Amino acid sequence: MRIGVLTAGGDCPGLNAVIRSIVHRAVTNYGDEVIGFEDGYAGLLDGRYRTLDLNAVSGILARGGTILGSSRLERARFAAACDNAKALVEKSGFDALIPIGGEGTLTAARMLSDAGVPVVGVPKTIDNDISSTDRTFGFDTAVGVATEAMDRLKTTAESHQRVMVVEVMGRHAGWIALESGMAGGAHGICLPERPFDPADLVKMVEERFSRGKKFAVICVAEGAHPAEGSMDYGKGEIDQFGHERFQGIGTALAYELERRLGKEARPVILGHVQRGGTPTAYDRVLATRFGWHAVEAVHRGEFGNMTALRGTDVRMVPLAEAVTRLKTVPEDRMREAESVF
Amino acid sequence: MRIGVLTAGGDCPGLNAVIRSIVHRAVTNYGDEVIGFEDGYAGLLDGRYRTLDLNAVSGILARGGTILGSSRLERARFAAACDNAKALVEKSGFDALIPIGGEGTLTAARMLSDAGVPVVGVPKTIDNDISSTDRTFGFDTAVGVATEAMDRLKTTAESHQRVMVVEVMGRHAGWIALESGMAGGAHGICLPERPFDPADLVKMVEERFSRGKKFAVICVAEGAHPAEGSMDYGKGEIDQFGHERFQGIGTALAYELERRLGKEARPVILGHVQRGGTPTAYDRVLATRFGWHAVEAVHRGEFGNMTALRGTDVRMVPLAEAVTRLKTVPEDRMREAESVF
Amino acid sequence: MRIGVLTAGGDCPGLNAVIRSIVHRAVTNYGDEVIGFEDGYAGLLDGRYRTLDLNAVSGILARGGTILGSSRLERARFAAACDNAKALVEKSGFDALIPIGGEGTLTAARMLSDAGVPVVGVPKTIDNDISSTDRTFGFDTAVGVATEAMDRLKTTAESHQRVMVVEVMGRHAGWIALESGMAGGAHGICLPERPFDPADLVKMVEERFSRGKKFAVICVAEGAHPAEGSMDYGKGEIDQFGHERFQGIGTALAYELERRLGKEARPVILGHVQRGGTPTAYDRVLATRFGWHAVEAVHRGEFGNMTALRGTDVRMVPLAEAVTRLKTVPEDRMREAESVF
Amino acid sequence: MRIGVLTAGGDCPGLNAVIRSIVHRAVTNYGDEVIGFEDGYAGLLDGRYRTLDLNAVSGILARGGTILGSSRLERARFAAACDNAKALVEKSGFDALIPIGGEGTLTAARMLSDAGVPVVGVPKTIDNDISSTDRTFGFDTAVGVATEAMDRLKTTAESHQRVMVVEVMGRHAGWIALESGMAGGAHGICLPERPFDPADLVKMVEERFSRGKKFAVICVAEGAHPAEGSMDYGKGEIDQFGHERFQGIGTALAYELERRLGKEARPVILGHVQRGGTPTAYDRVLATRFGWHAVEAVHRGEFGNMTALRGTDVRMVPLAEAVTRLKTVPEDRMREAESVF
Repeated sequence: MRIGVLTAGGDCPGLNAVIRSIVHRAVTNYGDEVIGFEDGYAGLLDGRYRTLDLNAVSGILARGGTILGSSRLERARFAAACDNAKALVEKSGFDALIPIGGEGTLTAARMLSDAGVPVVGVPKTIDNDISSTDRTFGFDTAVGVATEAMDRLKTTAESHQRVMVVEVMGRHAGWIALESGMAGGAHGICLPERPFDPADLVKMVEERFSRGKKFAVICVAEGAHPAEGSMDYGKGEIDQFGHERFQGIGTALAYELERRLGKEARPVILGHVQRGGTPTAYDRVLATRFGWHAVEAVHRGEFGNMTALRGTDVRMVPLAEAVTRLKTVPEDRMREAESVF
Repeated sequence: MRIGVLTAGGDCPGLNAVIRSIVHRAVTNYGDEVIGFEDGYAGLLDGRYRTLDLNAVSGILARGGTILGSSRLERARFAAACDNAKALVEKSGFDALIPIGGEGTLTAARMLSDAGVPVVGVPKTIDNDISSTDRTFGFDTAVGVATEAMDRLKTTAESHQRVMVVEVMGRHAGWIALESGMAGGAHGICLPERPFDPADLVKMVEERFSRGKKFAVICVAEGAHPAEGSMDYGKGEIDQFGHERFQGIGTALAYELERRLGKEARPVILGHVQRGGTPTAYDRVLATRFGWHAVEAVHRGEFGNMTALRGTDVRMVPLAEAVTRLKTVPEDRMREAESVF
Repeated sequence: MRIGVLTAGGDCPGLNAVIRSIVHRAVTNYGDEVIGFEDGYAGLLDGRYRTLDLNAVSGILARGGTILGSSRLERARFAAACDNAKALVEKSGFDALIPIGGEGTLTAARMLSDAGVPVVGVPKTIDNDISSTDRTFGFDTAVGVATEAMDRLKTTAESHQRVMVVEVMGRHAGWIALESGMAGGAHGICLPERPFDPADLVKMVEERFSRGKKFAVICVAEGAHPAEGSMDYGKGEIDQFGHERFQGIGTALAYELERRLGKEARPVILGHVQRGGTPTAYDRVLATRFGWHAVEAVHRGEFGNMTALRGTDVRMVPLAEAVTRLKTVPEDRMREAESVF
Repeated sequence: MRIGVLTAGGDCPGLNAVIRSIVHRAVTNYGDEVIGFEDGYAGLLDGRYRTLDLNAVSGILARGGTILGSSRLERARFAAACDNAKALVEKSGFDALIPIGGEGTLTAARMLSDAGVPVVGVPKTIDNDISSTDRTFGFDTAVGVATEAMDRLKTTAESHQRVMVVEVMGRHAGWIALESGMAGGAHGICLPERPFDPADLVKMVEERFSRGKKFAVICVAEGAHPAEGSMDYGKGEIDQFGHERFQGIGTALAYELERRLGKEARPVILGHVQRGGTPTAYDRVLATRFGWHAVEAVHRGEFGNMTALRGTDVRMVPLAEAVTRLKTVPEDRMREAESVF
């Protein structure tokens, strides 16, 4: 068989492990030809691709990023090009396409599938917010990076009697904040799923200081926002070039707490370090399994599906089911976290 | 309520996170008193314990080991002392006991439960071989340590055209070997579940060298053993003190491969580094959740159970069910690993 | 003898290793009494201190922060209190004081010394900018954290064809930027010692893209600044609370490059993670040696000095010499870095 | 100019950083041609080499191992081939040769130099035992790996009241044992430089247990040996294949301590993990500087020398001086370590 692979969307540790696994399984076990499209769907639409043999994927298991490159998808352009893509896939003699990506990528995969392209998706997001799968690869690495940062910040906060506000990724779902906050021993966690009141954080910090604990660490997802009326937030500022720039919630919250508490509070914005670098062992294993099962699905003709972790098993679930709603943090997971603040 | 806690069996990263979580949930949310027995069941039988308040568990989340100490259980002594233990628990006015430990500890917990002691168990093993739970805390850390070692060994093996045999923990189940072997990109994995033939490994190495790949890494569980008649193994040697000492499988296999291949092959025995040190974020989160849910089970009176991860949920499962058989690596997980060798 | 110890100034990995080493050497080998002042000079002036025995320093070698607490010194207050401090030291029967700190702390130490207090200083700064010593502990850890961040950012920059601007610590000296930039493989390094022209960075990035390298990482010290007239920078912005806030150079430079290049450029501000957490082996060894030699100097009566690394030896150098000028990055070190851009 | 490069001897983190630095400096700044010989001197003698341009060294800075391969030198073969090598260098039109390696490699370099080949050496050894340079790259990484292992082992030793004997590399010099022992907080360090008496270790452990510290970690260099008559050691055992095999000192010492103490003592042999993998930031910087200065020396015609770190400077020192004697651990460094046991 001739199988096309592409990686699209934001960077995510484990992408190379999926690519390597697909190539090993398809080439070594089935004698397939594997083709890698460059820079995501852009490479598919422009017909830019290259053959991926065992040598091409040698030594990439532990490497962050993607050897195929990636690009964010402009949905409008893609919708227009969808029929074209089908024609392209047929003309080039591809028997199957495996797009590896997040919500946008999988939605596009579904459109291709609906248009008749034989597609098996592999979900990818550090945010862990894709329905139908227990976890996504990349998430464990992101949580690990954020946790290590909090481990480091706690010692410095403690020595200097300071409040630290750590902003982690998560625009629409708070999984990274939840798990890194629990693992890093944060004393407060703010998620997109639940507007927070800075007054509660002020109370928590003051209660800690009254018990002789002279520091606090608060973990806040970039998409968290204050409850209405609880804090002035979200008005853009004008920067030196005349652009309106919005201050991130981590920075805004640190200033707000400093003002209300009369104590030093500092923001730390972790940013893109959470997306890059060597994946953890967990993510390499999950990514490798996803690649393996995607090839199996191709050979069983189970198109229109994506790989998903369910308990300890990797199963195929319909793309349609996976992309209809975001997987957000449920209340009971938040309650578990709160008791160790 | 008055809740007793103890940690027993081999060391495991995450024990302190469980203890901390139990104390936070029980003391802060329920106003319970938490008592920690010292050195496992030994402390229970000898009546050695101390109160655990918030200060006692401050700063231990990221620390390996256990602040309570541990000891391996002599089963005979314990069986004899079981009634005694019950009397002790009643006399001291404990409302519940939470033993944290592996297969032996949980079997003992079940005996206590059968004797009428109100028990909620928390499973713990780096080996991940306890039935009824998808994963145990400590396992992810052990896999991480072994994977990092393999990452390091690959570069040196490659530069020096060498075969490396890495022996990891796992006496009865090969989970650590399976996942660290996959994550570390091993070219062969030997598990206790399936006797191996060194001839297969020789063939794999020679095939790699013939393709120009001038090194190989083999990951072998300490409990793996050669297929009958495939290799001379298991006769003890007499050391300089006249003791019979058995050579570990990693060392024996490296020598065997060197002899058959006529190439340098070196054993690396990772040993106890896999058991100690800072737990990964994954293990801290799982351990924290287990502690939280154990306290909930105590307050709901769900005794005779242990905490278990099922998919993304933590549930209670009967101790009886959990300790009847070991969870070993199934064939299909092994097949996934083989295709990326 | 009775020896007082204090830690002052910003947080720095290795402080606990110095304290531990002082206590071990003084208590075990000389039978001294060691007293730790709380929160830096504040504890000295207020008479807040406690005895440090072997138990007090058990398990702290690998821990970031300082068990004694720290505070930044208000120089005016200290100058006024200096005679007072001397009286306090005499009254309490201290035979020697070992202040561990940066430029401010050591200047204060010199004032105390001039006032007749028997002082031996231990230099401490992650910035590595203290004259008379080849290196300071804490620096290696900070460089390690920044390097790991750059390792991670490179993979994500490469996959997404992006320019990353990483801002590291270093207000007056660029050592962290220099060494983490070299170790992290940055393509441009901006130091406080040498005003930069964004046009040079634009040229470098364009040259890289023209060679097919579709990303770049630039490492900029927080104290770096553009050459006069080369870029609009340094005007404060008015934030939502009406405060004037200055945008850091990392953020300003990323926006400037994005505007000039017409390519995505993202700032990453590492901040306080560089100051906290487990010290590297290098820093633990240097800190331990400094502590040991400080006690030796006390017992030899070599007051008015501080410990310093010279080649492979630890020597005593006059405080007066150490604090007169900042150690900045010389031109030839910068030239070494430039050739691997 | 036409410059040849080779890497020889045991693996060492930082080799790739030197190669990359040489290529960048020589190609970009001087327009030189750089040639890499494969597998050390073997490639030189066999005439196997390839051109190294900027692309060839892209992405290797943080990678362990060596892209050129390495091999141990058989001195007899080399001596015989030395004139031949000279002829080869001349015939191929090389203007200079930069061998990167340890004591054996540099001795060979000196022989080449004496035979008239224009040579500039770069010292490399994880053992840090080359005279004339304050430190060698690779050493910091090895110490870091060993220290992290000890950090992990301490928690498990403490929880289980155990003695751990950690064997680290260092056949002739104990630098790794000294610094990782200090950084890892070992309670005893055994070096090749000073025969040890197990009775002293027994006494130390018993003294610790009597103070309530229920564990101990002992760091022993692979080349350490017991004082004559203090312990039965060094008789080979006969393994299952009839080969005589010597038990390493770590294993032998653990058994000896277990026997004398009547407590569990376990050996951990770190082995080749100390040689491989990503170099620390320190080692990348030092390796990069050595590469840079080697090219400078070539262009200044300063042959017969090697690069050396002296304080904060990189200088050229005569090969003759560097290889005459091993740099061992002096007594005063050992005394510093002992006071924190």
